[in-house]
Amino acid sequence: MRYAVLGTGIVGRTIATKLASLGHEVVIGTRDPQATLARTEPDGMGNPPFATWHADHSAVALRTFAEAAAFGETVVVTTAGAAALDALTAADEANLAGKVLIDISNPLDFSKGMPPSLNPVNTDSLGEQIQRAFPDTKVVKTLNTMNCFVMVEPSRVAGAHNVFVSGEDVGAKKQVTELLVSFGWPEPGVIDLGGIETARGTEMLLPVWLRLMGALGHADFNFHIQGAR
Amino acid sequence: MRYAVLGTGIVGRTIATKLASLGHEVVIGTRDPQATLARTEPDGMGNPPFATWHADHSAVALRTFAEAAAFGETVVVTTAGAAALDALTAADEANLAGKVLIDISNPLDFSKGMPPSLNPVNTDSLGEQIQRAFPDTKVVKTLNTMNCFVMVEPSRVAGAHNVFVSGEDVGAKKQVTELLVSFGWPEPGVIDLGGIETARGTEMLLPVWLRLMGALGHADFNFHIQGAR
Repeated sequence: MRYAVLGTGIVGRTIATKLASLGHEVVIGTRDPQATLARTEPDGMGNPPFATWHADHSAVALRTFAEAAAFGETVVVTTAGAAALDALTAADEANLAGKVLIDISNPLDFSKGMPPSLNPVNTDSLGEQIQRAFPDTKVVKTLNTMNCFVMVEPSRVAGAHNVFVSGEDVGAKKQVTELLVSFGWPEPGVIDLGGIETARGTEMLLPVWLRLMGALGHADFNFHIQGAR
Repeated sequence: MRYAVLGTGIVGRTIATKLASLGHEVVIGTRDPQATLARTEPDGMGNPPFATWHADHSAVALRTFAEAAAFGETVVVTTAGAAALDALTAADEANLAGKVLIDISNPLDFSKGMPPSLNPVNTDSLGEQIQRAFPDTKVVKTLNTMNCFVMVEPSRVAGAHNVFVSGEDVGAKKQVTELLVSFGWPEPGVIDLGGIETARGTEMLLPVWLRLMGALGHADFNFHIQGAR
């Protein structure tokens, strides 16, 4: 399948690498490809600049958000939460209509200090905001409750653990579940929470995730719902 | 030890029953004991009135919040979240000073429809509000992330799963951890998240917990942090 991955950060690179390794055609979307490739500094988390990664993954083209979205049969949003709606607006509604949109982003708000809070939160979610803004697109919120390396290699965490899907379209959730299985997720580990409103629940896992990372001292952990089956 | 359990609902009754079964002296606190005992209707969840439960558990005395708090060496808050600060105010700061206060309540807000949202949320938590209101009391937030039957009988959920503790006082968390072990929690299953600020994380687990209950159709499940050890 042809995938557009919006976002050039570590999550986007990790997802794009996995998709390409599975034989999919992958294009990464960014606001300004020239500017993205021209950056020579590590990002705020110490990850190398995009160009360094891209030199080793030249089969993955870098295009504008709109070009990438036009190319992709399925679109994956991996930007920072605060940038997601702008990226999708730049991608253009017409390029998203009728497609499955996998939303991995979290609405982390760094403006009130560390650890980040969430915005929106509680009575709304970023997943719902995206679905409302693009009503002709089939939004599936998933994978946002773990480190990106666990997303594409669940066996990094020993034992059974879970990934959640939230969305209005049953067929879209089925397609995304098949993708998750191809990533290495056992199908019983995929928990369908219901409609996109349930993204409030998974986005609100981030605060305890961040504090667990602090308490455990690493990010190779995940939520397992014991008693789910 | 002498325990005061504030709140006469299903959580308070379940905790009081467990504490009494372990040989502790237990008093339950309520606003107006006569009024509580006079109720003959089931509560909103269909649980029998308090008097029905009390007839089978007469060793547990029912007293005012203040009388109960004065009696208890350790105090447990099991009221609805919206009632917790009022109950503790009625319990009287002097009766709480220097004591360990176990906060099991969740700030569920039913005013915006179902499922409930949270208030406070995100940049504050009920656990922090209680600690700020009673600075001479050692607040430990715990057990608020599961059904009350799982709290006191963790083996209802097969396999390993976790309970979190949040609080400023290391000795208080140690005491509460020993209590949890006496409830049946294996000590490695108790995850110390850090200070009371981390109660934001565990209170914000409620939204996904509520949606999981809907998706699974039962409440005998719990969070297991896979990769924590």
